[in-house]
Amino acid sequence: MIISDGNPRIKLVRSLASSHGRKKSGLYFIEGAKLIEEAIKANEDILFIVYSSDFGDSTLLKLIIDRDIDNFSVLPDVFVNIADTATPQGVLAVLKQQQRDWHEIMMLEHCLLLVLDAVQDPGNVGTMIRTADAMGFSAVIAGRGTADQYNPKVLRAAMGSSFHMPVYNDVPLPEALTELMERVSVLAAVPRGGIDIDEAPLADRTAIIIGNEARGISDKVMDNAAYTVSIGMPGRAESLNASIAAGIIMYEISRRWYSTN
Amino acid sequence: MIISDGNPRIKLVRSLASSHGRKKSGLYFIEGAKLIEEAIKANEDILFIVYSSDFGDSTLLKLIIDRDIDNFSVLPDVFVNIADTATPQGVLAVLKQQQRDWHEIMMLEHCLLLVLDAVQDPGNVGTMIRTADAMGFSAVIAGRGTADQYNPKVLRAAMGSSFHMPVYNDVPLPEALTELMERVSVLAAVPRGGIDIDEAPLADRTAIIIGNEARGISDKVMDNAAYTVSIGMPGRAESLNASIAAGIIMYEISRRWYSTN
Repeated sequence: MIISDGNPRIKLVRSLASSHGRKKSGLYFIEGAKLIEEAIKANEDILFIVYSSDFGDSTLLKLIIDRDIDNFSVLPDVFVNIADTATPQGVLAVLKQQQRDWHEIMMLEHCLLLVLDAVQDPGNVGTMIRTADAMGFSAVIAGRGTADQYNPKVLRAAMGSSFHMPVYNDVPLPEALTELMERVSVLAAVPRGGIDIDEAPLADRTAIIIGNEARGISDKVMDNAAYTVSIGMPGRAESLNASIAAGIIMYEISRRWYSTN
Repeated sequence: MIISDGNPRIKLVRSLASSHGRKKSGLYFIEGAKLIEEAIKANEDILFIVYSSDFGDSTLLKLIIDRDIDNFSVLPDVFVNIADTATPQGVLAVLKQQQRDWHEIMMLEHCLLLVLDAVQDPGNVGTMIRTADAMGFSAVIAGRGTADQYNPKVLRAAMGSSFHMPVYNDVPLPEALTELMERVSVLAAVPRGGIDIDEAPLADRTAIIIGNEARGISDKVMDNAAYTVSIGMPGRAESLNASIAAGIIMYEISRRWYSTN
């Protein structure tokens, strides 16, 4: 059992709380029994698991031993210091990040793509990844300035979806979309004034861009959209919460796309 | 200027942070210039406004004086102690709660109703009120056990929608739905196995029940639903975030209902 905060592996976990630390090492961590179980089942590349000495979920511990995953326990006080959550569940895993090249997307014959242009709130990004996964989207293209996929808050909101939804990170959107546009019908979501989302033209390969919570989609990214689309709102509220708007748009695209594809 | 924490009005504001204090006085408070401006424009019954002596929004202060609303300033240290937000904007208003009788609903000829069965998270309740407002719903029926409409977190997530969307609080759902069912088509949202929401039968008067985040809709409430409905999910995620699911369901009902009503 590790009892010191100064242990190199404890220091490593702590460094993964920052975006800089994650980028430097190519690693990240997840917390909680449910998420770790999903990561194991999805055959994610787990380096090691840390649990608090008072952690009591024997099903997970058995799974860790069965799969021969490197693991060690620490004192509860040490665990609290490395956990990201306010009331930690007492177990976390350090994983290798997936390295993906967005050019892969060009190979897809049929696809629904979610493109995030500097969506900043980690909860929103995580929720959008989870919704995209539920709605049968093929991939998420996270443009530069979007909250990091491996941010603990993004991972929590995404639930297990981070393990089955390919997310392309830090993509230079104007360049990528210029290439994509040749093969993909690119729609851009705007709060009002676009084509009603239930009437927007869909193609075998369709992408939808969601913009920053405050500023919307940047001009350079917007230049690469074929159509702007909006949600019809018969009521009085001026706008929707960003995740809700993205959720409704993905639902409507998915509903229509899957009825013909 | 009030400089003491012990001032009766300061004590009153502090009591409104708790559900018990709000129930006892029939009052509540809202924070921030934007929300207060919307409350003034919606002619809400504002008892008084408290601002921090370093508050600098002269447009709002002018509006407060123009409308002859009772107001006073406090030292910044006093303000921080009564504010609900971590980084307060320096202004809050105390308002009278709306007293509504859910039997009013029986008078509506055409209506879309959102029914909340013990939805617990204040952020979810506020977001659902905001979405219902955007989607042209007529009213929200908040069953017992649902987060209080006047909880500061609910009010923040609802944005200005609390001022135009009638919300019926603390409604005894089984009894109310038994009466409503005679005039309203009641649908119940379930994670899977219900009729696809884009095919569910809609009537001139339609209500949709959303259940508790963990337990779903209680049996006694479910007994009063004519149909269960679900969102078609072609993807892999097992479920959606509760607010997202409610948002998609309200969107789909609204889209179809407004095309015929």
